[in-house]
Amino acid sequence: MLDFSFTSPTKYIFGQDAEHSAGSMAADSGMTSVLVVYGGGSAIRSGLLDIVLKSLQNSGIAYIQLGGVQPNPVDTLVRKGIELCRQNSVNGIVAVGGGSVIDTAKAIAAGVPYNGDFWDFWAGKAQIKQALPVGVVLTIPAAGSEGSGNSVITLTPEMRKISLRTDFALRPKWALMNPKYTFTLPPYQTACGIVDMMAHIYERYFSTTPGVEVTDRVAEGVLQTIIEQGAKVMTTPDNYDVRANIMWSGTLAHNGICGTGRKEDWTSHAMEHEISALHPNVAHGAGLAVIMPAWMTFMAQHAPQKGAQMARRVFGVTNTDDTEAALEGIELLRKFYQSIGMPLTLSELGVNESEIPAMVQRLHENKGAIIGGYYQLTAKETTEIYHLAL
Amino acid sequence: MLDFSFTSPTKYIFGQDAEHSAGSMAADSGMTSVLVVYGGGSAIRSGLLDIVLKSLQNSGIAYIQLGGVQPNPVDTLVRKGIELCRQNSVNGIVAVGGGSVIDTAKAIAAGVPYNGDFWDFWAGKAQIKQALPVGVVLTIPAAGSEGSGNSVITLTPEMRKISLRTDFALRPKWALMNPKYTFTLPPYQTACGIVDMMAHIYERYFSTTPGVEVTDRVAEGVLQTIIEQGAKVMTTPDNYDVRANIMWSGTLAHNGICGTGRKEDWTSHAMEHEISALHPNVAHGAGLAVIMPAWMTFMAQHAPQKGAQMARRVFGVTNTDDTEAALEGIELLRKFYQSIGMPLTLSELGVNESEIPAMVQRLHENKGAIIGGYYQLTAKETTEIYHLAL
Repeated sequence: MLDFSFTSPTKYIFGQDAEHSAGSMAADSGMTSVLVVYGGGSAIRSGLLDIVLKSLQNSGIAYIQLGGVQPNPVDTLVRKGIELCRQNSVNGIVAVGGGSVIDTAKAIAAGVPYNGDFWDFWAGKAQIKQALPVGVVLTIPAAGSEGSGNSVITLTPEMRKISLRTDFALRPKWALMNPKYTFTLPPYQTACGIVDMMAHIYERYFSTTPGVEVTDRVAEGVLQTIIEQGAKVMTTPDNYDVRANIMWSGTLAHNGICGTGRKEDWTSHAMEHEISALHPNVAHGAGLAVIMPAWMTFMAQHAPQKGAQMARRVFGVTNTDDTEAALEGIELLRKFYQSIGMPLTLSELGVNESEIPAMVQRLHENKGAIIGGYYQLTAKETTEIYHLAL
Repeated sequence: MLDFSFTSPTKYIFGQDAEHSAGSMAADSGMTSVLVVYGGGSAIRSGLLDIVLKSLQNSGIAYIQLGGVQPNPVDTLVRKGIELCRQNSVNGIVAVGGGSVIDTAKAIAAGVPYNGDFWDFWAGKAQIKQALPVGVVLTIPAAGSEGSGNSVITLTPEMRKISLRTDFALRPKWALMNPKYTFTLPPYQTACGIVDMMAHIYERYFSTTPGVEVTDRVAEGVLQTIIEQGAKVMTTPDNYDVRANIMWSGTLAHNGICGTGRKEDWTSHAMEHEISALHPNVAHGAGLAVIMPAWMTFMAQHAPQKGAQMARRVFGVTNTDDTEAALEGIELLRKFYQSIGMPLTLSELGVNESEIPAMVQRLHENKGAIIGGYYQLTAKETTEIYHLAL
């Protein structure tokens, strides 16, 4: 087990009516004037935005609004939010939505007190010293951004998608999580979220660090839950307990508890980011459903141990040969993804073989000539993995 | 799944040399003058206390010391600590030790700013509004107090042992956890810690709340780890990874993550407290090794579902009859406890049948005429459970 530090300071209020605590939680975290960030119309149509705004009002908290956050959120809206906050002396951000909304809120929170361009942080040119407090009202279980210190923003017009990870600076102060608001998520979006949270665990689970049994067992337990409840949610989308299990699993998948004490490997996420950077209409989860099994298939040939352990402990595979067990597990994983309506190939995503060289080039420009913690990959191997995904 | 709130704000620094961060962590949490609380001689003999004091000194933090905390810590030392803090204008407490030391530190932290007797909080007469910040340097994985909001103190001379649970007020600000300092724990003490942390999970796991699959899977994963690593530690007490897994499991067992979304049932802890209140030389873990399986045996006859699930998922029992499966699981649990040198009966603890009426009477005086969340018990049933433990 490697040395680690861990903290999960976000205060989660989980359950029925959680959204009504927005005002009191904002007040408790010192907010007096906030920017409420949201996405498209669903937060309005469901009535959630209204409830949140009324709750803020009842607690005497002034607010302005910024809607229109899109999937794969971009720098331009972040800059607009920073501007709005400065003009209105805002001292807190409330995100009402899923990962894209929360990541936008975090970027605004980091940018407001910074005397420079917020992108400096994502470009690795500066470190966040302070940020406005962020509160979350979660509507999509997927990114785990409600409990993580991460934020993924795409720089336009280059479509350069960068994930920033902080230990502490970008962790939300509070997150209100009412599973009822996920009942009406379309099946495709629900499935994308399931793939995303599973990937957050896999990227931590595939590790060469020995002696992390407790972290492995927790990770396997959350994976098993997501697979079991993920199958159920497709036929019973308005079952509260099923939605609740998926929602809390999404938080546990990414708040750090599944990664304690080991080296992680975020190669699949980086490889997927190059797909959705070129094809912004590809949902992150759909891209991961294609890339993650391809990456695992390469690993089954070169470093099968962890894939075999996953196959046996999560899917109950009994094959004693590591490579064969790993491949059986990947097959079961693909079948699960397919059963919830996810694509399995790049061509289903509309990505052509001819685009692979450009993705590989950008991947290594962004991440270095050799990438990967579980197994090191040069452009030759990442090309092979993209080809395995065709 | 029930509504819940969850936060784990403690900052854990886990690994080799963690103890050297005492000064910087104390400074980060605003401490300038601290009381260092410890137990017997082991913190001195191991050199740990010296390292902590030097680290504080190097960060410019003044300190005074209070040693001599005993297992089943008592109010008198808490009062002495409060007095010392007030005389020396202390603004933080650093606990160097295990659960008894940390619980004493927490009680002192709550008592210093309170204009009354600290016992008011434990007696349920007042609620903690503020407390000094507490930092921990952990030496015994067992009580989980390094990450919990709990503190167990015994009032003398009545020997009234009360566990106070707070959501937030008593959570340590930081905890430094170096598994190396647990290498020299005697086998009996190591085993008591293992039983204690397992009980912290069982008391959450035995629940009638449906739809908590993710919480169940995490709990089962931590239980499996403790049992597997607990067997190993007896033959390889100085294996770093084994000790590290046990140490981190002890924190996860009690920081709340194994209890989210369900009704808990702390009857076994309450029943054990009556044993160690009358027999202060009985270690809490040893008492639990006797009581917990007796409580489970009663439940196998009256509400076998959760015991059967535990038997199947943690111990791999295949029996399809719930009562039989539960009883098989309890038998395997008893065998495990026995294999690590734990007692299985009240008589091994030096407790006589004739003491049962007094324990039952005090139990219900402290906890009410009917106790238990998983299954409700009157004095008739708690008497039966104590008898099952003879």
